[in-house]
Amino acid sequence: MKKLKRSERLVDMTQYLLSEPHTLISLTTFAERYGAAKSSISEDLAIIKEVFEDEGMGELQTLAGAAGGVKYIPKLRKDHALSFAQELCHKLQQSDRILPGGYLYMSDLLGEPSLMNEAGKIFATVFADCDIDVVMTVETKGIPLAYATAAQLNLPVVLVRRDHQVTEGSAVSINYVSGSHKSIHTMSLSRRALKERSRVLIVDDFMKAGGTIQGMVDLLAEFNAEVAGVGVLLESGAVESEERLLQDYISLARLSDVDSKSKMITVNPGNYFEK
Amino acid sequence: MKKLKRSERLVDMTQYLLSEPHTLISLTTFAERYGAAKSSISEDLAIIKEVFEDEGMGELQTLAGAAGGVKYIPKLRKDHALSFAQELCHKLQQSDRILPGGYLYMSDLLGEPSLMNEAGKIFATVFADCDIDVVMTVETKGIPLAYATAAQLNLPVVLVRRDHQVTEGSAVSINYVSGSHKSIHTMSLSRRALKERSRVLIVDDFMKAGGTIQGMVDLLAEFNAEVAGVGVLLESGAVESEERLLQDYISLARLSDVDSKSKMITVNPGNYFEK
Repeated sequence: MKKLKRSERLVDMTQYLLSEPHTLISLTTFAERYGAAKSSISEDLAIIKEVFEDEGMGELQTLAGAAGGVKYIPKLRKDHALSFAQELCHKLQQSDRILPGGYLYMSDLLGEPSLMNEAGKIFATVFADCDIDVVMTVETKGIPLAYATAAQLNLPVVLVRRDHQVTEGSAVSINYVSGSHKSIHTMSLSRRALKERSRVLIVDDFMKAGGTIQGMVDLLAEFNAEVAGVGVLLESGAVESEERLLQDYISLARLSDVDSKSKMITVNPGNYFEK
Repeated sequence: MKKLKRSERLVDMTQYLLSEPHTLISLTTFAERYGAAKSSISEDLAIIKEVFEDEGMGELQTLAGAAGGVKYIPKLRKDHALSFAQELCHKLQQSDRILPGGYLYMSDLLGEPSLMNEAGKIFATVFADCDIDVVMTVETKGIPLAYATAAQLNLPVVLVRRDHQVTEGSAVSINYVSGSHKSIHTMSLSRRALKERSRVLIVDDFMKAGGTIQGMVDLLAEFNAEVAGVGVLLESGAVESEERLLQDYISLARLSDVDSKSKMITVNPGNYFEK
Protein backbone atom coordinates (compact mmCIF):
# COMPACT_ATOMS: atom_id res chain seq x y z
CA MET A 1 0.00 0.00 0.00
CA LYS A 2 1.32 3.44 -0.85
CA LYS A 3 2.26 5.81 1.96
CA LEU A 4 -0.80 7.73 3.10
CA LYS A 5 -1.21 11.11 4.72
CA ARG A 6 -2.98 11.34 8.08
CA SER A 7 -6.25 12.45 6.47
CA GLU A 8 -6.15 9.44 4.15
CA ARG A 9 -5.11 7.08 6.93
CA LEU A 10 -8.11 8.18 9.00
CA VAL A 11 -10.49 7.26 6.18
CA ASP A 12 -8.89 3.87 5.61
CA MET A 13 -8.52 3.02 9.30
CA THR A 14 -12.15 3.89 9.91
CA GLN A 15 -13.37 1.52 7.21
CA TYR A 16 -10.90 -1.15 8.34
CA LEU A 17 -12.06 -1.03 11.96
CA LEU A 18 -15.75 -0.98 10.99
CA SER A 19 -15.28 -4.02 8.77
CA GLU A 20 -13.52 -6.01 11.51
CA PRO A 21 -15.55 -5.61 14.71
CA HIS A 22 -14.55 -7.54 17.85
CA THR A 23 -11.15 -8.27 16.28
CA LEU A 24 -7.85 -7.29 17.85
CA ILE A 25 -5.74 -5.39 15.33
CA SER A 26 -2.14 -4.76 16.30
CA LEU A 27 -0.59 -1.32 15.89
CA THR A 28 2.07 -3.06 13.80
CA THR A 29 -0.57 -4.09 11.26
CA PHE A 30 -1.58 -0.47 10.80
CA ALA A 31 2.01 0.83 10.94
CA GLU A 32 3.04 -1.56 8.16
CA ARG A 33 -0.11 -1.00 6.14
CA TYR A 34 0.55 2.74 5.98
CA GLY A 35 4.33 2.91 6.32
CA ALA A 36 3.81 5.12 9.37
CA ALA A 37 5.31 5.23 12.86
CA LYS A 38 3.35 3.56 15.66
CA SER A 39 3.21 6.90 17.46
CA SER A 40 1.37 8.41 14.47
CA ILE A 41 -1.00 5.43 14.39
CA SER A 42 -1.74 5.96 18.09
CA GLU A 43 -2.60 9.59 17.43
CA ASP A 44 -4.88 8.54 14.54
CA LEU A 45 -6.63 6.04 16.77
CA ALA A 46 -7.21 8.67 19.45
CA ILE A 47 -9.08 10.81 16.89
CA ILE A 48 -11.15 7.85 15.68
CA LYS A 49 -11.91 6.77 19.24
CA GLU A 50 -13.22 10.21 20.13
CA VAL A 51 -15.52 10.40 17.10
CA PHE A 52 -16.82 6.83 17.55
CA GLU A 53 -17.59 7.45 21.20
CA ASP A 54 -19.08 10.93 20.68
CA GLU A 55 -21.32 9.57 17.94
CA GLY A 56 -22.45 6.60 20.02
CA MET A 57 -21.07 4.11 17.49
CA GLY A 58 -19.33 1.97 20.07
CA GLU A 59 -16.01 1.64 21.82
CA LEU A 60 -12.47 1.54 20.57
CA GLN A 61 -10.64 -0.56 23.15
CA THR A 62 -6.89 -0.15 23.30
CA LEU A 63 -4.78 -2.97 24.72
CA ALA A 64 -1.27 -1.97 25.70
CA GLY A 65 1.85 -4.15 25.57
CA ALA A 66 3.54 -6.43 23.06
CA ALA A 67 0.34 -8.39 22.31
CA GLY A 68 -1.59 -5.13 22.29
CA GLY A 69 -3.59 -3.36 19.67
CA VAL A 70 -7.02 -1.97 19.13
CA LYS A 71 -10.45 -3.55 18.99
CA TYR A 72 -13.69 -2.00 17.78
CA ILE A 73 -16.75 -2.98 19.83
CA PRO A 74 -19.93 -1.83 18.04
CA LYS A 75 -22.49 -0.52 20.49
CA LEU A 76 -25.75 1.31 20.13
CA ARG A 77 -26.48 3.85 22.84
CA LYS A 78 -29.62 3.08 24.83
CA ASP A 79 -31.37 6.30 23.78
CA HIS A 80 -30.71 5.46 20.13
CA ALA A 81 -31.91 1.91 20.76
CA LEU A 82 -35.11 3.25 22.31
CA SER A 83 -35.77 5.52 19.30
CA PHE A 84 -35.30 2.47 17.11
CA ALA A 85 -37.71 0.40 19.22
CA GLN A 86 -40.33 3.15 19.24
CA GLU A 87 -40.11 3.46 15.47
CA LEU A 88 -40.44 -0.33 15.19
CA CYS A 89 -43.50 -0.32 17.49
CA HIS A 90 -45.03 2.44 15.42
CA LYS A 91 -44.62 0.39 12.24
CA LEU A 92 -45.91 -2.79 13.88
CA GLN A 93 -49.08 -0.99 14.96
CA GLN A 94 -50.20 -0.31 11.37
CA SER A 95 -53.65 -1.91 11.34
CA ASP A 96 -53.29 -3.54 7.91
CA ARG A 97 -50.78 -5.96 9.44
CA ILE A 98 -53.55 -7.99 11.08
CA LEU A 99 -53.93 -11.42 9.47
CA PRO A 100 -56.63 -14.06 10.00
CA GLY A 101 -56.17 -15.70 13.40
CA GLY A 102 -54.74 -12.53 14.92
CA TYR A 103 -51.30 -13.06 13.38
CA LEU A 104 -49.22 -10.04 12.42
CA TYR A 105 -47.64 -9.54 9.00
CA MET A 106 -44.05 -8.48 9.57
CA SER A 107 -42.15 -9.97 6.62
CA ASP A 108 -41.70 -6.51 5.10
CA LEU A 109 -39.89 -5.31 8.23
CA LEU A 110 -37.82 -8.49 8.50
CA GLY A 111 -36.94 -7.90 4.84
CA GLU A 112 -35.24 -4.54 5.52
CA PRO A 113 -31.51 -5.19 5.97
CA SER A 114 -30.96 -1.78 7.59
CA LEU A 115 -33.63 -2.47 10.20
CA MET A 116 -32.20 -5.91 10.93
CA ASN A 117 -28.73 -4.38 11.25
CA GLU A 118 -29.95 -1.88 13.84
CA ALA A 119 -31.65 -4.62 15.85
CA GLY A 120 -28.53 -6.78 15.50
CA LYS A 121 -26.44 -3.90 16.82
CA ILE A 122 -28.64 -3.73 19.92
CA PHE A 123 -28.16 -7.45 20.62
CA ALA A 124 -24.42 -7.04 19.95
CA THR A 125 -24.42 -4.28 22.57
CA VAL A 126 -26.32 -6.32 25.17
CA PHE A 127 -24.24 -9.46 24.70
CA ALA A 128 -20.87 -7.81 23.92
CA ASP A 129 -19.16 -9.19 27.04
CA CYS A 130 -20.90 -12.57 27.25
CA ASP A 131 -18.05 -14.58 25.77
CA ILE A 132 -20.18 -16.04 22.99
CA ASP A 133 -18.89 -18.55 20.43
CA VAL A 134 -21.80 -18.75 18.03
CA VAL A 135 -25.22 -17.26 17.26
CA MET A 136 -28.04 -19.76 16.73
CA THR A 137 -31.51 -19.49 15.24
CA VAL A 138 -34.12 -21.84 13.79
CA GLU A 139 -35.36 -21.36 10.26
CA THR A 140 -36.83 -19.20 8.83
CA LYS A 141 -37.81 -15.72 9.91
CA GLY A 142 -35.13 -15.22 12.56
CA ILE A 143 -32.27 -15.80 10.11
CA PRO A 144 -31.63 -12.18 9.02
CA LEU A 145 -31.58 -11.00 12.63
CA ALA A 146 -29.19 -13.79 13.63
CA TYR A 147 -26.78 -12.84 10.82
CA ALA A 148 -27.01 -9.13 11.61
CA THR A 149 -26.16 -9.86 15.25
CA ALA A 150 -23.37 -12.29 14.37
CA ALA A 151 -21.80 -9.86 11.90
CA GLN A 152 -21.51 -7.20 14.63
CA LEU A 153 -20.04 -9.73 17.07
CA ASN A 154 -17.74 -11.30 14.44
CA LEU A 155 -19.20 -14.76 15.09
CA PRO A 156 -20.55 -17.61 12.96
CA VAL A 157 -24.24 -18.51 12.70
CA VAL A 158 -25.60 -21.99 13.31
CA LEU A 159 -28.94 -22.70 11.71
CA VAL A 160 -31.38 -25.22 13.17
CA ARG A 161 -33.63 -26.84 10.55
CA ARG A 162 -37.27 -27.87 10.92
CA ASP A 163 -36.55 -31.13 9.05
CA HIS A 164 -33.46 -33.18 8.58
CA GLN A 165 -31.91 -32.18 5.23
CA VAL A 166 -29.64 -34.24 2.96
CA THR A 167 -27.22 -31.31 2.83
CA GLU A 168 -26.63 -31.32 6.59
CA GLY A 169 -25.08 -34.76 7.07
CA SER A 170 -25.83 -36.70 10.23
CA ALA A 171 -27.91 -34.64 12.59
CA VAL A 172 -29.46 -34.61 16.04
CA SER A 173 -33.23 -34.21 16.03
CA ILE A 174 -35.42 -33.37 18.99
CA ASN A 175 -39.13 -32.92 19.54
CA TYR A 176 -40.46 -29.86 21.25
CA VAL A 177 -43.87 -28.61 22.32
CA SER A 178 -44.98 -25.26 21.02
CA GLY A 179 -46.02 -23.55 24.24
CA SER A 180 -49.05 -21.74 22.88
CA HIS A 181 -50.69 -24.49 20.81
CA LYS A 182 -49.32 -27.49 22.71
CA SER A 183 -48.56 -29.14 19.37
CA ILE A 184 -45.44 -31.25 18.86
CA HIS A 185 -42.77 -30.29 16.33
CA THR A 186 -39.29 -31.43 15.36
CA MET A 187 -36.06 -29.52 14.95
CA SER A 188 -32.75 -30.81 13.76
CA LEU A 189 -29.13 -29.68 13.86
CA SER A 190 -26.20 -31.08 11.93
CA ARG A 191 -23.75 -33.00 14.13
CA ARG A 192 -20.84 -31.01 12.80
CA ALA A 193 -22.47 -27.59 13.16
CA LEU A 194 -21.61 -27.06 16.81
CA LYS A 195 -18.57 -27.87 18.94
CA GLU A 196 -19.02 -29.23 22.47
CA ARG A 197 -19.07 -26.64 25.23
CA SER A 198 -19.85 -23.79 22.82
CA ARG A 199 -21.46 -20.75 24.38
CA VAL A 200 -24.47 -19.92 22.26
CA LEU A 201 -26.55 -16.79 21.77
CA ILE A 202 -30.07 -17.74 20.62
CA VAL A 203 -31.81 -15.16 18.41
CA ASP A 204 -35.32 -15.25 16.99
CA ASP A 205 -37.84 -12.87 15.46
CA PHE A 206 -40.82 -13.73 17.67
CA MET A 207 -41.49 -15.47 20.96
CA LYS A 208 -44.84 -16.36 22.45
CA ALA A 209 -44.66 -18.86 25.31
CA GLY A 210 -41.08 -19.69 24.33
CA GLY A 211 -41.57 -23.29 23.15
CA THR A 212 -39.40 -22.91 20.06
CA ILE A 213 -36.59 -21.29 22.00
CA GLN A 214 -36.91 -23.93 24.73
CA GLY A 215 -36.52 -26.47 21.91
CA MET A 216 -33.22 -24.83 20.91
CA VAL A 217 -32.12 -24.89 24.55
CA ASP A 218 -32.89 -28.63 24.71
CA LEU A 219 -30.99 -29.15 21.46
CA LEU A 220 -27.96 -27.37 22.94
CA ALA A 221 -27.98 -29.84 25.82
CA GLU A 222 -27.60 -32.67 23.27
CA PHE A 223 -24.41 -30.97 22.08
CA ASN A 224 -23.14 -30.27 25.61
CA ALA A 225 -23.30 -26.63 24.65
CA GLU A 226 -24.67 -23.85 26.81
CA VAL A 227 -26.98 -20.89 26.42
CA ALA A 228 -25.13 -17.59 26.80
CA GLY A 229 -28.19 -15.46 26.10
CA VAL A 230 -31.51 -15.18 24.29
CA GLY A 231 -32.62 -12.21 22.19
CA VAL A 232 -35.97 -11.80 20.42
CA LEU A 233 -37.17 -8.94 18.27
CA LEU A 234 -40.81 -9.14 19.35
CA GLU A 235 -42.35 -11.00 22.26
CA SER A 236 -46.00 -11.62 22.84
CA GLY A 237 -47.23 -10.10 26.08
CA ALA A 238 -50.45 -12.11 25.85
CA VAL A 239 -48.98 -15.04 27.77
CA GLU A 240 -49.82 -15.94 31.36
CA SER A 241 -46.60 -15.89 33.35
CA GLU A 242 -47.04 -19.54 34.44
CA GLU A 243 -47.28 -20.48 30.74
CA ARG A 244 -43.99 -18.80 29.88
CA LEU A 245 -41.30 -21.44 29.46
CA LEU A 246 -38.41 -19.00 29.54
CA GLN A 247 -37.65 -16.19 31.98
CA ASP A 248 -34.24 -14.98 30.95
CA TYR A 249 -34.31 -13.20 27.59
CA ILE A 250 -34.06 -9.77 26.01
CA SER A 251 -36.88 -8.44 23.83
CA LEU A 252 -36.85 -5.24 21.79
CA ALA A 253 -40.63 -4.93 21.48
CA ARG A 254 -43.68 -6.45 23.17
CA LEU A 255 -46.98 -7.15 21.45
CA SER A 256 -49.65 -6.75 24.10
CA ASP A 257 -52.82 -6.86 22.04
CA VAL A 258 -54.19 -7.58 18.58
CA ASP A 259 -57.87 -6.73 18.31
CA SER A 260 -59.12 -8.05 14.97
CA LYS A 261 -62.52 -6.39 15.40
CA SER A 262 -61.40 -2.83 16.03
CA LYS A 263 -58.21 -3.40 14.01
CA MET A 264 -56.08 -2.13 16.88
CA ILE A 265 -52.58 -3.45 17.53
CA THR A 266 -50.70 -2.49 20.69
CA VAL A 267 -46.92 -2.80 20.70
CA ASN A 268 -44.53 -1.28 23.24
CA PRO A 269 -40.77 -1.30 23.66
CA GLY A 270 -39.54 -4.63 25.05
CA ASN A 271 -37.98 -5.67 28.34
CA TYR A 272 -34.52 -4.38 27.32
CA PHE A 273 -35.80 -0.90 28.07
CA GLU A 274 -37.14 -1.84 31.50
CA LYS A 275 -33.74 -2.90 32.81
CA MET B 1 -23.72 17.71 16.57
CA LYS B 2 -20.74 19.67 17.81
CA LYS B 3 -18.45 21.35 15.30
CA LEU B 4 -15.81 18.90 14.11
CA LYS B 5 -12.31 19.38 12.77
CA ARG B 6 -11.45 18.02 9.34
CA SER B 7 -9.77 14.93 10.78
CA GLU B 8 -12.88 14.16 12.84
CA ARG B 9 -15.21 14.91 9.93
CA LEU B 10 -13.31 12.42 7.77
CA VAL B 11 -13.87 9.65 10.31
CA ASP B 12 -17.56 10.41 10.69
CA MET B 13 -18.21 10.93 6.96
CA THR B 14 -16.50 7.63 6.18
CA GLN B 15 -18.73 5.69 8.57
CA TYR B 16 -21.79 7.61 7.38
CA LEU B 17 -21.15 6.83 3.71
CA LEU B 18 -20.35 3.18 4.42
CA SER B 19 -23.57 2.77 6.38
CA GLU B 20 -25.70 4.29 3.60
CA PRO B 21 -24.62 2.70 0.31
CA HIS B 22 -26.49 3.52 -2.91
CA THR B 23 -28.07 6.53 -1.17
CA LEU B 24 -27.75 10.10 -2.41
CA ILE B 25 -26.56 12.32 0.42
CA SER B 26 -26.69 16.06 -0.23
CA LEU B 27 -23.73 18.27 0.60
CA THR B 28 -26.16 20.30 2.71
CA THR B 29 -26.76 17.27 4.94
CA PHE B 30 -23.05 17.04 5.66
CA ALA B 31 -22.58 20.83 5.90
CA GLU B 32 -25.34 21.05 8.51
CA ARG B 33 -24.22 17.93 10.35
CA TYR B 34 -20.75 19.39 10.89
CA GLY B 35 -21.43 23.13 10.83
CA ALA B 36 -18.94 23.38 7.97
CA ALA B 37 -18.92 25.17 4.61
CA LYS B 38 -19.89 23.14 1.55
CA SER B 39 -16.49 23.89 0.05
CA SER B 40 -14.82 22.18 3.03
CA ILE B 41 -17.18 19.22 2.67
CA SER B 42 -16.25 18.93 -1.01
CA GLU B 43 -12.57 18.82 -0.09
CA ASP B 44 -13.29 16.12 2.53
CA LEU B 45 -15.17 14.08 -0.05
CA ALA B 46 -12.28 14.33 -2.51
CA ILE B 47 -9.97 12.75 0.09
CA ILE B 48 -12.47 9.98 0.88
CA LYS B 49 -13.09 9.33 -2.81
CA GLU B 50 -9.38 8.88 -3.47
CA VAL B 51 -8.91 6.42 -0.61
CA PHE B 52 -12.05 4.41 -1.46
CA GLU B 53 -11.01 4.13 -5.09
CA ASP B 54 -7.34 3.39 -4.37
CA GLU B 55 -8.35 0.67 -1.93
CA GLY B 56 -10.83 -0.89 -4.35
CA MET B 57 -13.74 -0.32 -1.96
CA GLY B 58 -16.02 1.14 -4.60
CA GLU B 59 -16.96 4.45 -6.12
CA LEU B 60 -17.95 7.76 -4.64
CA GLN B 61 -20.21 9.32 -7.25
CA THR B 62 -20.63 13.07 -7.10
CA LEU B 63 -23.74 14.63 -8.61
CA ALA B 64 -23.48 18.36 -9.25
CA GLY B 65 -26.31 20.91 -9.09
CA ALA B 66 -29.08 21.83 -6.66
CA ALA B 67 -30.32 18.24 -6.33
CA GLY B 68 -26.74 17.06 -6.16
CA GLY B 69 -24.76 15.25 -3.55
CA VAL B 70 -22.68 12.17 -3.14
CA LYS B 71 -23.44 8.47 -3.38
CA TYR B 72 -21.30 5.55 -2.27
CA ILE B 73 -21.43 2.55 -4.62
CA PRO B 74 -19.73 -0.45 -2.96
CA LYS B 75 -17.71 -2.44 -5.46
CA LEU B 76 -15.23 -5.25 -5.18
CA ARG B 77 -12.40 -5.18 -7.70
CA LYS B 78 -12.30 -8.21 -9.96
CA ASP B 79 -8.86 -9.33 -8.76
CA HIS B 80 -10.09 -9.19 -5.15
CA ALA B 81 -13.23 -11.09 -6.19
CA LEU B 82 -11.10 -13.76 -7.84
CA SER B 83 -8.97 -14.18 -4.69
CA PHE B 84 -12.19 -14.58 -2.76
CA ALA B 85 -13.52 -17.18 -5.21
CA GLN B 86 -10.26 -19.14 -5.16
CA GLU B 87 -10.29 -19.20 -1.38
CA LEU B 88 -13.91 -20.36 -1.47
CA CYS B 89 -13.05 -23.13 -3.96
CA HIS B 90 -10.18 -24.21 -1.77
CA LYS B 91 -12.49 -24.54 1.24
CA LEU B 92 -15.19 -26.32 -0.77
CA GLN B 93 -12.66 -28.93 -1.91
CA GLN B 94 -12.01 -30.19 1.64
CA SER B 95 -12.80 -33.89 1.28
CA ASP B 96 -14.71 -34.21 4.56
CA ARG B 97 -17.51 -32.14 3.01
CA ILE B 98 -18.76 -35.13 1.00
CA LEU B 99 -22.13 -36.37 2.26
CA PRO B 100 -24.07 -39.52 1.31
CA GLY B 101 -25.52 -39.11 -2.19
CA GLY B 102 -22.64 -36.91 -3.31
CA TYR B 103 -24.02 -33.81 -1.57
CA LEU B 104 -21.61 -31.23 -0.20
CA TYR B 105 -21.72 -29.90 3.35
CA MET B 106 -21.43 -26.12 3.14
CA SER B 107 -23.52 -24.86 6.07
CA ASP B 108 -20.36 -23.81 7.92
CA LEU B 109 -19.37 -21.51 5.04
CA LEU B 110 -22.90 -20.15 4.64
CA GLY B 111 -22.79 -19.50 8.39
CA GLU B 112 -19.85 -17.06 8.13
CA PRO B 113 -21.28 -13.53 7.90
CA SER B 114 -17.96 -12.12 6.63
CA LEU B 115 -17.86 -14.63 3.79
CA MET B 116 -21.47 -13.91 2.85
CA ASN B 117 -20.72 -10.18 2.92
CA GLU B 118 -17.84 -10.59 0.48
CA ALA B 119 -19.99 -12.66 -1.88
CA GLY B 120 -22.80 -10.12 -1.50
CA LYS B 121 -20.37 -7.36 -2.41
CA ILE B 122 -19.50 -9.18 -5.64
CA PHE B 123 -23.17 -9.44 -6.62
CA ALA B 124 -23.66 -5.79 -5.65
CA THR B 125 -20.78 -4.96 -8.01
CA VAL B 126 -22.15 -7.01 -10.91
CA PHE B 127 -25.70 -5.71 -10.57
CA ALA B 128 -24.90 -2.15 -9.41
CA ASP B 129 -26.40 -0.50 -12.51
CA CYS B 130 -29.29 -2.90 -13.14
CA ASP B 131 -31.98 -0.69 -11.65
CA ILE B 132 -33.11 -3.32 -9.17
CA ASP B 133 -36.03 -2.84 -6.75
CA VAL B 134 -35.75 -5.93 -4.61
CA VAL B 135 -33.60 -9.00 -3.95
CA MET B 136 -35.44 -12.33 -3.84
CA THR B 137 -34.52 -15.78 -2.59
CA VAL B 138 -36.32 -18.95 -1.54
CA GLU B 139 -35.84 -20.37 1.93
CA THR B 140 -33.52 -21.46 3.44
CA LYS B 141 -29.85 -21.57 2.59
CA GLY B 142 -29.75 -18.61 0.19
CA ILE B 143 -31.12 -16.18 2.79
CA PRO B 144 -27.83 -14.88 4.24
CA LEU B 145 -26.43 -14.25 0.75
CA ALA B 146 -29.60 -12.44 -0.31
CA TYR B 147 -29.41 -10.14 2.74
CA ALA B 148 -25.71 -9.49 2.27
CA THR B 149 -26.34 -8.51 -1.36
CA ALA B 150 -29.38 -6.40 -0.50
CA ALA B 151 -27.55 -4.56 2.28
CA GLN B 152 -24.83 -3.47 -0.17
CA LEU B 153 -27.44 -2.36 -2.72
CA ASN B 154 -29.67 -0.70 -0.09
CA LEU B 155 -32.66 -2.81 -1.15
CA PRO B 156 -35.29 -4.92 0.63
CA VAL B 157 -35.35 -8.72 0.55
CA VAL B 158 -38.39 -10.73 -0.47
CA LEU B 159 -38.46 -14.28 0.81
CA VAL B 160 -40.27 -17.06 -1.03
CA ARG B 161 -41.53 -19.82 1.27
CA ARG B 162 -41.72 -23.55 0.55
CA ASP B 163 -45.17 -23.71 2.17
CA HIS B 164 -47.89 -21.20 2.67
CA GLN B 165 -47.50 -19.77 6.20
CA VAL B 166 -50.16 -18.21 8.43
CA THR B 167 -47.85 -15.24 9.00
CA GLU B 168 -47.72 -14.34 5.30
CA GLY B 169 -51.38 -13.52 4.64
CA SER B 170 -52.88 -14.38 1.26
CA ALA B 171 -50.24 -15.75 -1.05
CA VAL B 172 -49.63 -16.94 -4.58
CA SER B 173 -48.40 -20.53 -4.81
CA ILE B 174 -46.89 -22.22 -7.82
CA ASN B 175 -45.60 -25.69 -8.60
CA TYR B 176 -42.21 -26.18 -10.12
CA VAL B 177 -40.17 -29.12 -11.31
CA SER B 178 -36.76 -29.60 -9.80
CA GLY B 179 -34.63 -29.97 -12.92
CA SER B 180 -32.31 -32.65 -11.62
CA HIS B 181 -34.78 -35.02 -9.92
CA LYS B 182 -37.86 -34.16 -11.99
CA SER B 183 -39.86 -34.07 -8.76
CA ILE B 184 -42.64 -31.53 -8.22
CA HIS B 185 -42.46 -28.94 -5.43
CA THR B 186 -44.41 -25.89 -4.31
CA MET B 187 -43.29 -22.38 -3.51
CA SER B 188 -45.36 -19.54 -2.21
CA LEU B 189 -45.06 -15.77 -1.95
CA SER B 190 -47.20 -13.38 0.05
CA ARG B 191 -49.45 -11.22 -2.14
CA ARG B 192 -48.26 -8.08 -0.42
CA ALA B 193 -44.55 -8.90 -0.60
CA LEU B 194 -43.97 -7.64 -4.13
CA LYS B 195 -45.27 -4.65 -6.10
CA GLU B 196 -46.25 -5.07 -9.76
CA ARG B 197 -43.51 -4.32 -12.27
CA SER B 198 -40.75 -4.69 -9.67
CA ARG B 199 -37.32 -5.46 -11.07
CA VAL B 200 -35.99 -8.40 -9.10
CA LEU B 201 -32.52 -9.80 -8.48
CA ILE B 202 -32.75 -13.52 -7.67
CA VAL B 203 -30.02 -14.86 -5.37
CA ASP B 204 -29.43 -18.43 -4.21
CA ASP B 205 -26.67 -20.50 -2.67
CA PHE B 206 -26.68 -23.38 -5.15
CA MET B 207 -28.00 -24.11 -8.62
CA LYS B 208 -28.01 -27.43 -10.41
CA ALA B 209 -30.29 -27.54 -13.46
CA GLY B 210 -31.95 -24.33 -12.31
CA GLY B 211 -35.43 -25.68 -11.50
CA THR B 212 -35.76 -23.77 -8.24
CA ILE B 213 -34.67 -20.51 -9.83
CA GLN B 214 -36.97 -21.14 -12.80
CA GLY B 215 -39.73 -21.56 -10.19
CA MET B 216 -38.94 -18.09 -8.82
CA VAL B 217 -38.97 -16.70 -12.36
CA ASP B 218 -42.44 -18.24 -12.91
CA LEU B 219 -43.58 -16.79 -9.59
CA LEU B 220 -42.42 -13.33 -10.68
CA ALA B 221 -44.61 -13.62 -13.77
CA GLU B 222 -47.64 -14.09 -11.46
CA PHE B 223 -46.77 -10.73 -9.90
CA ASN B 224 -46.12 -9.02 -13.25
CA ALA B 225 -42.61 -8.48 -11.98
CA GLU B 226 -39.45 -9.02 -13.97
CA VAL B 227 -36.08 -10.67 -13.49
CA ALA B 228 -33.26 -8.14 -13.44
CA GLY B 229 -30.55 -10.72 -12.78
CA VAL B 230 -29.68 -14.05 -11.20
CA GLY B 231 -26.70 -14.68 -8.94
CA VAL B 232 -25.68 -18.00 -7.37
CA LEU B 233 -22.79 -18.75 -5.06
CA LEU B 234 -22.10 -22.24 -6.41
CA GLU B 235 -23.36 -23.88 -9.57
CA SER B 236 -23.12 -27.52 -10.46
CA GLY B 237 -21.13 -28.09 -13.63
CA ALA B 238 -22.39 -31.68 -13.81
CA VAL B 239 -25.44 -30.72 -15.88
CA GLU B 240 -25.85 -31.42 -19.59
CA SER B 241 -26.39 -28.10 -21.33
CA GLU B 242 -29.76 -29.22 -22.75
CA GLU B 243 -30.90 -29.98 -19.19
CA ARG B 244 -30.04 -26.49 -17.96
CA LEU B 245 -33.23 -24.48 -17.58
CA LEU B 246 -31.50 -21.13 -17.24
CA GLN B 247 -28.77 -19.57 -19.35
CA ASP B 248 -28.41 -16.07 -17.98
CA TYR B 249 -26.91 -16.05 -14.50
CA ILE B 250 -23.73 -15.22 -12.60
CA SER B 251 -21.96 -17.87 -10.52
CA LEU B 252 -19.01 -17.34 -8.20
CA ALA B 253 -17.89 -20.97 -8.14
CA ARG B 254 -18.58 -24.11 -10.16
CA LEU B 255 -18.64 -27.63 -8.74
CA SER B 256 -17.48 -29.90 -11.53
CA ASP B 257 -17.03 -33.19 -9.72
CA VAL B 258 -17.68 -34.99 -6.45
CA ASP B 259 -16.07 -38.42 -6.37
CA SER B 260 -17.32 -40.21 -3.26
CA LYS B 261 -14.93 -43.12 -3.80
CA SER B 262 -11.66 -41.22 -4.02
CA LYS B 263 -13.07 -38.42 -1.83
CA MET B 264 -12.09 -35.81 -4.42
CA ILE B 265 -14.10 -32.63 -4.93
CA THR B 266 -13.35 -30.31 -7.84
CA VAL B 267 -14.49 -26.70 -7.61
CA ASN B 268 -13.35 -23.82 -9.83
CA PRO B 269 -14.18 -20.13 -9.99
CA GLY B 270 -17.58 -19.53 -11.58
CA ASN B 271 -18.71 -17.94 -14.82
CA TYR B 272 -18.30 -14.38 -13.45
CA PHE B 273 -14.57 -14.81 -13.97
CA GLU B 274 -14.96 -16.01 -17.56
CA LYS B 275 -16.65 -12.81 -18.70
